[in-house]
Amino acid sequence: MVHWALRHSVWMTAAEEQTGKTAAAEASGSERFESRIPEGDDRPRLVCRDCGFINYENPKVVVGSVATWEDRILLCRRAIEPRRGYWTLPAGYLEQKETAAAGAEREAWEEAGAKLIIDQLLAVYSILHISQIQLIFRAELASPDLAAGAETLELDLFTWQSIPWDDLAFPSVRWALHDHRAVRGQSGFAPRGNPSEPEEGPFGL
Amino acid sequence: MVHWALRHSVWMTAAEEQTGKTAAAEASGSERFESRIPEGDDRPRLVCRDCGFINYENPKVVVGSVATWEDRILLCRRAIEPRRGYWTLPAGYLEQKETAAAGAEREAWEEAGAKLIIDQLLAVYSILHISQIQLIFRAELASPDLAAGAETLELDLFTWQSIPWDDLAFPSVRWALHDHRAVRGQSGFAPRGNPSEPEEGPFGL
Repeated sequence: MVHWALRHSVWMTAAEEQTGKTAAAEASGSERFESRIPEGDDRPRLVCRDCGFINYENPKVVVGSVATWEDRILLCRRAIEPRRGYWTLPAGYLEQKETAAAGAEREAWEEAGAKLIIDQLLAVYSILHISQIQLIFRAELASPDLAAGAETLELDLFTWQSIPWDDLAFPSVRWALHDHRAVRGQSGFAPRGNPSEPEEGPFGL
Repeated sequence: MVHWALRHSVWMTAAEEQTGKTAAAEASGSERFESRIPEGDDRPRLVCRDCGFINYENPKVVVGSVATWEDRILLCRRAIEPRRGYWTLPAGYLEQKETAAAGAEREAWEEAGAKLIIDQLLAVYSILHISQIQLIFRAELASPDLAAGAETLELDLFTWQSIPWDDLAFPSVRWALHDHRAVRGQSGFAPRGNPSEPEEGPFGL
């Protein structure tokens, strides 16, 4: 028996998430699960009819950075699905026993061979449809010497004007870039959150 | 077969965490798990020898608040283990498809019948030994009318001087209270992190 334990790809799109879930459910016997409220709990969970395994699903934490060298921002072109070929910030799942900042540093190193000097938390985004909490830091690069990792096709340092806006991988990449720009020159600020404007709104992207 | 899927109690202490894990492992057949690197992954995970289930463990997100009415801070005395009888902030696990702020509001409502007016993110704590990320908000209470929930023995609003410092449930409760005080009067600030001082340090608590 294989329990349903998909590890969702970072920043998966809504459609892919749906597809992924359905495919996983079919492939792994998730029909064994029923939705019910376990004893002592207060909301329904997926419980295996056979063995009682409770599939607690908790939101996952993604950590990443908007990292700059002088006035240019590091972006990586994704070598993996979802959104292969599109540009993203160095980011990924926080691992066990890792601080959020250490996770952001690790992801930048793994994806871009980049060493970060983290400044402060830039933004906290809640991506509800995939239950992700993204913690995005503002950072400087210790050096412009970079190297694409296994999950990166190529990388580059972009001025604001040269950012490939039409080829960004995820909405929250665009949010983070705009939030980074919005706090230029500020040295202590409250982290930004999801834009309150509709996604097709003021950014015009 | 019951897979090892303990839901750790919020802010469990190191000792309790260890005990809990051991007991759970014994009770639920976790000897079926071996530690190995799954295909396409880059680090060891616990994999069931029998069925291939991969027990991905991700850090869990706890959301909570330092909520005030005038100059007094809401604390709740825990009705549940761990640390039953000790005082804590309203906080708990973030649920799926819930923003961090909504989660903090829900916990305050469930544990204290409190309606929050959230101001901004006060602190992000990384509790490494239990792989928790705590997002603690600064908030005001919409009203001083409160009611202890099922997980709360009693609650009260404390002035700084009357806080039961010797009976706080967890170190991060103390951190949050001190951080809340440190940013008094500031209306936009970078969230605070773990104190860099050793736990037995400057707070003298």
